Amino acid sequence: MNEEQLDDLIAYLKFPSVSTDSSHAGDVLECAEWLREKMASQGLEAAIHETAGHPVVVGRNNHIADRPTVMIYGHYDVQPADPLELWDSPPFEPRIEGGKIYARGSTDNKGQNLAHILGIGESIAAEGDLPVNVIVLVEGEEEIGSPNLELFLEQNKEDLACDIVAVSDTGMLAAGLGTFTYGLRGITCMELKVRGPAMDLHSGVFGGAVANPAMAAAKIAASLHGEDGRVAVEGFYDRVEQLQDWERENWARLPVPADETLDLTGAPGLFGEAGFTDTERRWARPTAEINGIGGGYQGEGSKTVIPAEAFVKFSFRLVPDQDPDEILGLVRVHCEKNTPPGVSVDYEFGHSGKSYVMDPQSGFGKAAQEALGKTFDGQPALIREGGSIPIVQTFRDVLGVDTLLLGLALPDCRIHSPNENFLIRNFFDGIRLNRNLLQALAQ
Amino acid sequence: MNEEQLDDLIAYLKFPSVSTDSSHAGDVLECAEWLREKMASQGLEAAIHETAGHPVVVGRNNHIADRPTVMIYGHYDVQPADPLELWDSPPFEPRIEGGKIYARGSTDNKGQNLAHILGIGESIAAEGDLPVNVIVLVEGEEEIGSPNLELFLEQNKEDLACDIVAVSDTGMLAAGLGTFTYGLRGITCMELKVRGPAMDLHSGVFGGAVANPAMAAAKIAASLHGEDGRVAVEGFYDRVEQLQDWERENWARLPVPADETLDLTGAPGLFGEAGFTDTERRWARPTAEINGIGGGYQGEGSKTVIPAEAFVKFSFRLVPDQDPDEILGLVRVHCEKNTPPGVSVDYEFGHSGKSYVMDPQSGFGKAAQEALGKTFDGQPALIREGGSIPIVQTFRDVLGVDTLLLGLALPDCRIHSPNENFLIRNFFDGIRLNRNLLQALAQ
Repeated sequence: MNEEQLDDLIAYLKFPSVSTDSSHAGDVLECAEWLREKMASQGLEAAIHETAGHPVVVGRNNHIADRPTVMIYGHYDVQPADPLELWDSPPFEPRIEGGKIYARGSTDNKGQNLAHILGIGESIAAEGDLPVNVIVLVEGEEEIGSPNLELFLEQNKEDLACDIVAVSDTGMLAAGLGTFTYGLRGITCMELKVRGPAMDLHSGVFGGAVANPAMAAAKIAASLHGEDGRVAVEGFYDRVEQLQDWERENWARLPVPADETLDLTGAPGLFGEAGFTDTERRWARPTAEINGIGGGYQGEGSKTVIPAEAFVKFSFRLVPDQDPDEILGLVRVHCEKNTPPGVSVDYEFGHSGKSYVMDPQSGFGKAAQEALGKTFDGQPALIREGGSIPIVQTFRDVLGVDTLLLGLALPDCRIHSPNENFLIRNFFDGIRLNRNLLQALAQ
Repeated sequence: MNEEQLDDLIAYLKFPSVSTDSSHAGDVLECAEWLREKMASQGLEAAIHETAGHPVVVGRNNHIADRPTVMIYGHYDVQPADPLELWDSPPFEPRIEGGKIYARGSTDNKGQNLAHILGIGESIAAEGDLPVNVIVLVEGEEEIGSPNLELFLEQNKEDLACDIVAVSDTGMLAAGLGTFTYGLRGITCMELKVRGPAMDLHSGVFGGAVANPAMAAAKIAASLHGEDGRVAVEGFYDRVEQLQDWERENWARLPVPADETLDLTGAPGLFGEAGFTDTERRWARPTAEINGIGGGYQGEGSKTVIPAEAFVKFSFRLVPDQDPDEILGLVRVHCEKNTPPGVSVDYEFGHSGKSYVMDPQSGFGKAAQEALGKTFDGQPALIREGGSIPIVQTFRDVLGVDTLLLGLALPDCRIHSPNENFLIRNFFDGIRLNRNLLQALAQ
């Protein structure tokens, strides 16, 4: 274990680079500057590129014609840390215990992208150069849907031209089991604001005579699912591709513990769409979820008001071949149809990203599997994942290339949750994986 | 206008005596002590009586056999003032503008009960005594359902024995129109906590495989109403008494502006139970309302989590002859039947109070109408009200007496809402009303 590399990780994790919260904009900038310096110290030419939002940090080695160009992508922004009271230690004061480092962003994604950067540094230190041309691109807006990265790629298309992208931002099925992810769900988000009376009303004086916006919000939200766990929006499943037989059979054989979801979540039971396994529901079926709901009195005790307004924040996970904009259109029509009388509804549409699937048996796919096999000593698992990395589809659309997903996130790493953590062994395996990957891709 | 009396009102309104919020317990106590001193200064023998919660302040004159004993009831506690940002001036710094005084508690109920106390003081100052025996009882827990008052009445039954209770805590149909309220809705409250996973989850990793507690909360809440605006709980209407023909006809003739509810609430439209007028819905039909709902991400932007839990705060307005406990039982059975799989639900039951109706043509009812007619110069309106004063039913149960409701709250006084206000003229009319009432009841 290289103490200096671990110190680098600790320093990186101390920045509260929460991209969704404008009060953290200064922290995001400081984190970007630290990252640029780190890339430079590892032997890359590194620069910060402004965007309309948070900046992109790009590092590159000396490019030589006639060898493949590999882009390593990551993000230095993190999810909000709340609810803070559920963390065992402060989210931006990294704590090491039982071989893990606990901090917001430890797995998602600082630990993983820093492993690549330090792997590159090791290769350059040992060999004087890398076996391939490398572009390291680390952005600061992944957790808010990368709203400015597509334009950045478009505007720098020539400088960023490459043959393949590699990303470590997905999961490993188990510690020590190399895992190649060839598919991801997409996402689209929407917030409803339901408005009724101009102010909170006394529920005795006016109750029964005007519509209650919180009740209307609940009615709209409740209408999104049928009792069978399916999304009840008309047309929602029209473009959904059937799962392939080889995938279902392969997934059924993977070493996923039978009660993994229950153990990891602590949920009182499994619940999902009829006719699909837990794995299939998580990796390859679309969803409609409430991420937040609120309205009316939030404090201690009771306050007998009819709230003036209520909100619901929704997100939808999408699978091939659903289109985010089309889905938002269908959902809006559904919500309008299910809005009870007496309220008005404002719709706000958030970030979107298409789902993604690549052929795991392509040349680059095989190279990725070889690097995983060498790093983790055995045949890697071939999986899809439920999360969304919309930028992967953008790389295909703008740069015309596929993305290799070589994740280092363990099932119990608690990304987006309190006590997010990263296995320190995975950090150092990630450094080795980078070296093995660049060698495999050079062939 | 007596400046000293107005100064008394301002001093009273400065106490943030919010009974539901334990952080204001000290303010509640200070308010009680101020009130005791004020009663004493008006010529009453006054004392503070401890309860298991906030204290009761009781004042009395020298009681003489063979004349009626009248209890004047009020409450010195107030609703929470939030959302604070919607007040035009701080809720506990009374502001006078356009003939009104703006403060939390100005109408509900400090302005009204202080008018009675100062009316008594005027009578004693002018006549040396009152024409009746008086007990002034002002409690500190009305806004949380008077949890300790029933026991207090039981334990002090002899000292508090009386022939009639008079309360000013209801509405006037319009400024200058004396209004006698002979019926009130009851209330009962319930909070649901819906629990799912042990922590907030990444909606990509786990979405589709476990139940979402916010979605479950929405489903349960949405199930409470049918599309016709009726409460969908089985048995909910079984004990509801039909409206009398004379009431419906009388109410249809009252000078209530056609668009009053729309004007007062700013709601985009009326909505309520089919087959009833706006007035009937507000005064004499039962309801189910969400007072607050919450769960998951509440901040700016989006956070794609499945929340670990969600809550819904409900209240139900009740009419004769619904029983609060029976209704809570029916509602709980309904909620359990409508809870989707994969979550657990905790139920917490809040304060309750029965509905109330008295005969407006009884002897005391006629005396009340006479006092109103003298004070406001004309035939008073006979109405029922949608709000709840559960203690009125308790007076009947424990002390065996009816309650005269002689309200001074105007339709636009915004009780329970930001910018609550009280017409200063009504404060001084209330002082006169007290003198006229005690004289009428003496006969």
